[in-house]
Amino acid sequence: MSDVKEIKVSIIGATGYVGAELVRGFCAHPYAEIIHLTSQSFAGKAFSDIYPVYKGVCDIVLEEGDYIQIAKDSDLVITALPHGVSSKTVPVLLENGARVIDHSGDFRYKDLATYEKSYKLEHPHPELLKEAVYGLPEFYRNELKTARLTANPGCYPTCSLIALAPFLVQGLIEPDSIIIDAVSGVSGAGRKSDLAYAFCETDEAFKPYGAVGHRHTTEIAEQCGFLSAKAGSGRTVKSVTFTPHLAPFKRGMLASIYAKPSAAFEEVTSEKINEVYQEFYNNETFVRVLTNKNLPDVKSVYGSNYIDVNGLYDPETGVIKLFSAQDNLGKGAALQAIQAANCMFGLPEDTGLKNMVRGV
Amino acid sequence: MSDVKEIKVSIIGATGYVGAELVRGFCAHPYAEIIHLTSQSFAGKAFSDIYPVYKGVCDIVLEEGDYIQIAKDSDLVITALPHGVSSKTVPVLLENGARVIDHSGDFRYKDLATYEKSYKLEHPHPELLKEAVYGLPEFYRNELKTARLTANPGCYPTCSLIALAPFLVQGLIEPDSIIIDAVSGVSGAGRKSDLAYAFCETDEAFKPYGAVGHRHTTEIAEQCGFLSAKAGSGRTVKSVTFTPHLAPFKRGMLASIYAKPSAAFEEVTSEKINEVYQEFYNNETFVRVLTNKNLPDVKSVYGSNYIDVNGLYDPETGVIKLFSAQDNLGKGAALQAIQAANCMFGLPEDTGLKNMVRGV
Amino acid sequence: MSDVKEIKVSIIGATGYVGAELVRGFCAHPYAEIIHLTSQSFAGKAFSDIYPVYKGVCDIVLEEGDYIQIAKDSDLVITALPHGVSSKTVPVLLENGARVIDHSGDFRYKDLATYEKSYKLEHPHPELLKEAVYGLPEFYRNELKTARLTANPGCYPTCSLIALAPFLVQGLIEPDSIIIDAVSGVSGAGRKSDLAYAFCETDEAFKPYGAVGHRHTTEIAEQCGFLSAKAGSGRTVKSVTFTPHLAPFKRGMLASIYAKPSAAFEEVTSEKINEVYQEFYNNETFVRVLTNKNLPDVKSVYGSNYIDVNGLYDPETGVIKLFSAQDNLGKGAALQAIQAANCMFGLPEDTGLKNMVRGV
Amino acid sequence: MSDVKEIKVSIIGATGYVGAELVRGFCAHPYAEIIHLTSQSFAGKAFSDIYPVYKGVCDIVLEEGDYIQIAKDSDLVITALPHGVSSKTVPVLLENGARVIDHSGDFRYKDLATYEKSYKLEHPHPELLKEAVYGLPEFYRNELKTARLTANPGCYPTCSLIALAPFLVQGLIEPDSIIIDAVSGVSGAGRKSDLAYAFCETDEAFKPYGAVGHRHTTEIAEQCGFLSAKAGSGRTVKSVTFTPHLAPFKRGMLASIYAKPSAAFEEVTSEKINEVYQEFYNNETFVRVLTNKNLPDVKSVYGSNYIDVNGLYDPETGVIKLFSAQDNLGKGAALQAIQAANCMFGLPEDTGLKNMVRGV
Repeated sequence: MSDVKEIKVSIIGATGYVGAELVRGFCAHPYAEIIHLTSQSFAGKAFSDIYPVYKGVCDIVLEEGDYIQIAKDSDLVITALPHGVSSKTVPVLLENGARVIDHSGDFRYKDLATYEKSYKLEHPHPELLKEAVYGLPEFYRNELKTARLTANPGCYPTCSLIALAPFLVQGLIEPDSIIIDAVSGVSGAGRKSDLAYAFCETDEAFKPYGAVGHRHTTEIAEQCGFLSAKAGSGRTVKSVTFTPHLAPFKRGMLASIYAKPSAAFEEVTSEKINEVYQEFYNNETFVRVLTNKNLPDVKSVYGSNYIDVNGLYDPETGVIKLFSAQDNLGKGAALQAIQAANCMFGLPEDTGLKNMVRGV
Repeated sequence: MSDVKEIKVSIIGATGYVGAELVRGFCAHPYAEIIHLTSQSFAGKAFSDIYPVYKGVCDIVLEEGDYIQIAKDSDLVITALPHGVSSKTVPVLLENGARVIDHSGDFRYKDLATYEKSYKLEHPHPELLKEAVYGLPEFYRNELKTARLTANPGCYPTCSLIALAPFLVQGLIEPDSIIIDAVSGVSGAGRKSDLAYAFCETDEAFKPYGAVGHRHTTEIAEQCGFLSAKAGSGRTVKSVTFTPHLAPFKRGMLASIYAKPSAAFEEVTSEKINEVYQEFYNNETFVRVLTNKNLPDVKSVYGSNYIDVNGLYDPETGVIKLFSAQDNLGKGAALQAIQAANCMFGLPEDTGLKNMVRGV
Repeated sequence: MSDVKEIKVSIIGATGYVGAELVRGFCAHPYAEIIHLTSQSFAGKAFSDIYPVYKGVCDIVLEEGDYIQIAKDSDLVITALPHGVSSKTVPVLLENGARVIDHSGDFRYKDLATYEKSYKLEHPHPELLKEAVYGLPEFYRNELKTARLTANPGCYPTCSLIALAPFLVQGLIEPDSIIIDAVSGVSGAGRKSDLAYAFCETDEAFKPYGAVGHRHTTEIAEQCGFLSAKAGSGRTVKSVTFTPHLAPFKRGMLASIYAKPSAAFEEVTSEKINEVYQEFYNNETFVRVLTNKNLPDVKSVYGSNYIDVNGLYDPETGVIKLFSAQDNLGKGAALQAIQAANCMFGLPEDTGLKNMVRGV
Repeated sequence: MSDVKEIKVSIIGATGYVGAELVRGFCAHPYAEIIHLTSQSFAGKAFSDIYPVYKGVCDIVLEEGDYIQIAKDSDLVITALPHGVSSKTVPVLLENGARVIDHSGDFRYKDLATYEKSYKLEHPHPELLKEAVYGLPEFYRNELKTARLTANPGCYPTCSLIALAPFLVQGLIEPDSIIIDAVSGVSGAGRKSDLAYAFCETDEAFKPYGAVGHRHTTEIAEQCGFLSAKAGSGRTVKSVTFTPHLAPFKRGMLASIYAKPSAAFEEVTSEKINEVYQEFYNNETFVRVLTNKNLPDVKSVYGSNYIDVNGLYDPETGVIKLFSAQDNLGKGAALQAIQAANCMFGLPEDTGLKNMVRGV
């Protein structure tokens, strides 16, 4: 373990919800010091003018952002920018010596064609795709240690992959049978003034959206492909069925996943499914395998970097049901970035995160 | 009572929340037929395209609105337009033979100077102020019977005046002691895409707003002046202290009102306060005086034209506390307009409204 | 059509949420007159003491309930009792001349063994199972016309069956491929003081429950079996995968259903799926087939008897996605009972229901 | 300042919401070590069995509680027990060497008669009232340094007193004119299974409760008496008008306070009111005086120990309006206890609290 005692952090695009949650996490981090916060819309205002909750906690004045200077001043720069914008900004930061964690989809993929088709954009720096490390520490912590560029996963992908991984890497489910039905709180849509996310339009509403072709589908499928390849069965995941839904709460994400057991999974029971989870995530601080047939609930992970998982077997239909719950801004975005940053800088992964829960 | 069997109704500005609630009410009204619905933003679309809840209930195509034709086609035109726009539109409708209920503040005042100061506008048709009837049937039903122009009260005024009236007209409270602390659901802000009313900005938030100088203050004060003048004590209400708050639910309004008893109110007790309410509102269908010291709750008036009231006396401090709860879109706006329309057209006031509640 | 002009209705178990919603619906019904309301817990109190929202709307005094007298006094008795209690109560009512709509699971099944296994009860009157009509008018309206006993479907079954029926009866989906992922508002749990449904335990929470073996699974499967038998392919539905979830809103239900197209469904597209819905439900008032790839939202059916449906095809994985949204107390329970009652008494099915929506 | 590097803490009554929030705070505290957690209802279970959010964060097994042993093992014992139970338990803890912070009302009063009348109990240990220090560090930090027994204030009192103090101690408001209209989230009612706090009974509901005679009224009045005595005008606060309301969110509290300026407050303006706040709370970390006429919002203090204040003057009616917002479980209860504990043990008051916010 390194003897890093301070990480200078800057956040580009600090006033979206992900940015604000990054500020929350880094303010509470014993070794992080926030150097620059940028915002195109609010340059010149204090961060706490935009988020009064941070008054006295983070009153840093927002800047438009001299990215070259920011890169030089910082050990770590986190970009919370829209896709297509990150892909232009990140290379500048890297060139000037910063290590970067990016929150957009621009560096998550290994396959360029898949990215370009899913995001309908031409990637200006495809050479970085190979180098970028997918920011899921549970899978990629070795790579993160030396990563220069970390691509923070999408929220739905983290939630789905953590639930699926133990079964994929051990070839226990049929690769072409995966159905993911997921639910997200409204903060996942971002801090925007669209009427669609107005309180009166969203409160007491619940509906599917992006029900076919949501971008996260291909991201989930690509990572599932990598995970399933480890099983060595010759059959890997090519695609998944994925349906997101919008729920009338601010923060939280739950995935309900359906899959068929493979022939290799003998005598499936709910108990065995739980054992698979227990063994696979035995040493993982942030993946909490529930017991006693308790099922994940977004309430229990609120405001934290924890992700709860459990699964059941439906013997009537022969379907495996897997469930995972996380906070879409927590393990789904900003707090996972801090976990990845801890990896990147040689700190215990739970630094500043272990005791961060919202409580009741 | 008239033998009206049909009222042709048109709504100008049908796609705001008040407009949508008017549609709800008139669709359920046994004698109303909706002729025209107008919307500047959505002309050409079906009303149910904007409000899918009305699919199959009201699929009328929205029009930009030929106001002259609308006036000619309709018995009653309801204008749900912003202040300053109503004052230009309403006269055209009146000239062309329609009777009008207006939802803006433009015709609520008797004193022109007060209106112009509160709304910071010059009134283009002050001659109509004298004629306009304040659309609170409990106070003005005689005038409504023959009204050509009805000014639907503001939501906070209705909530406050119903609670205060019995004590004002009988001179039972000190006219200069009135403090109104009120709370409204978010639909009161209107159907807009302001970031301030975005779900993530409003959910779990609660705060005062417009805490000094909210326009409804002078409207409440003017009507309180009229009510207190009936007491004949020579002392009337000139001003009230009023503080609105925004609460994280869609619909609902509660007023908590504080006042000092006058010398005329002898031996004040909570029971006597309740008796004052019982006597005053004995025959009023929509003002429900609670008993057994039950206090109003916005849940109990949700989706209806009912307003619940009750009061208590605090002997320690000698303060009278009065409470009233209504639905800000119901008795606070659209459903009260339907009650007023019933008056205007000689129907029993509870036509189409008596059984309209949201239930659990 | 009959010339019934009045239906005397009584509700046994009137103070649960289903009971209260039945009161709402029957109060607004032009031909219904509520005769008796019973409650074990609150006999002697006015219904509006328990539900202040009904003050002035329904102040009927609750009775313990003389079931024989109630049956004699009423044309229709609705039992909103727990399973196992209904099965003892309903026969008494039938014997004394009432027609009955029962809200429990006790008379929904045709197969006695399935009922007894699912509800873990011995049925005291299995002879009534054959006679009982499943209260889904869209499928059983002819039988309802002469029904003496109607079994109101479970909420999740209504939501699922309406979405699946067009595809099952035409053999367009693989019978063993059905996965139903559904979400319900908290009122579905009933009016109870369990800590699990306390506000602070439920607000901002979202989780699966009863994730394997929920009773509605077998009810859905039995009806799917009947529907799929009509396709004449020789292959029927034997079982379904069903997962309910609890969401932090009061009322609303959404089902997201996944199935594989059968060989009979050629060249599946989202447009074709929509056409299947349009044709099948062409004349159905309460099943609203959305267009333009709009997807159901619980907000749009709130407080009504409407159920919105639409479907999409995911060409990447070859999965059909079907969605339906209803109000769990509306089409999911009490308002569907009123629709069934209209059938039973020869009234237009939309009597008292057509314009009943909550609005914004 | 002391050089304490570790505080052994135990919590008696750990499974209510206050207890759970104390666990949250102490888990995040750099110097606290939780030794014992007790619960009558759940002894033998892990704390994280009751609050799954704490799985991996606090898995301590709950005990019935040997209070003598607990007192001996701990530097600090926090009692989150009902009033009347604390008054019997706390002396045992003190006798056995622990310093205690109590969350009930049992030790908050200086006047025994006021306590006994408000709580309708005979105090078993009135001799402790004199010794007990009222746990509001902003007022009593010197006393807290050496306190053996700290009485954590009620939530409404903290919210009200912080807002009123600057004006009381400087004699700027009329002592008999104070009206406090306050709103609380549902967690203030405690973790209970009362139907009144069931989700469906509380969601979308808003109402006053305990509208005359709520116990906190006398607690607020007593402390206001002490504060106003410092003004030396000879006129002190004897009573206040106080009305609490229940709002449909979990956590949060807002007080809207009305008072008349005294003759000593010359030429009142909103700016002067803000200046009074700025000067009085200049060095207070946790009292955040808002600027630019921004008003407190419960959203901005969620999950923290911060309390936001600001005030305005209504020149029309000559009324001062003061507003304060806190988290009822944060500054209103558990996190304030941690601030007080920091005082008691010679740590910087913001230890473990400064950066604790919920964020978006």
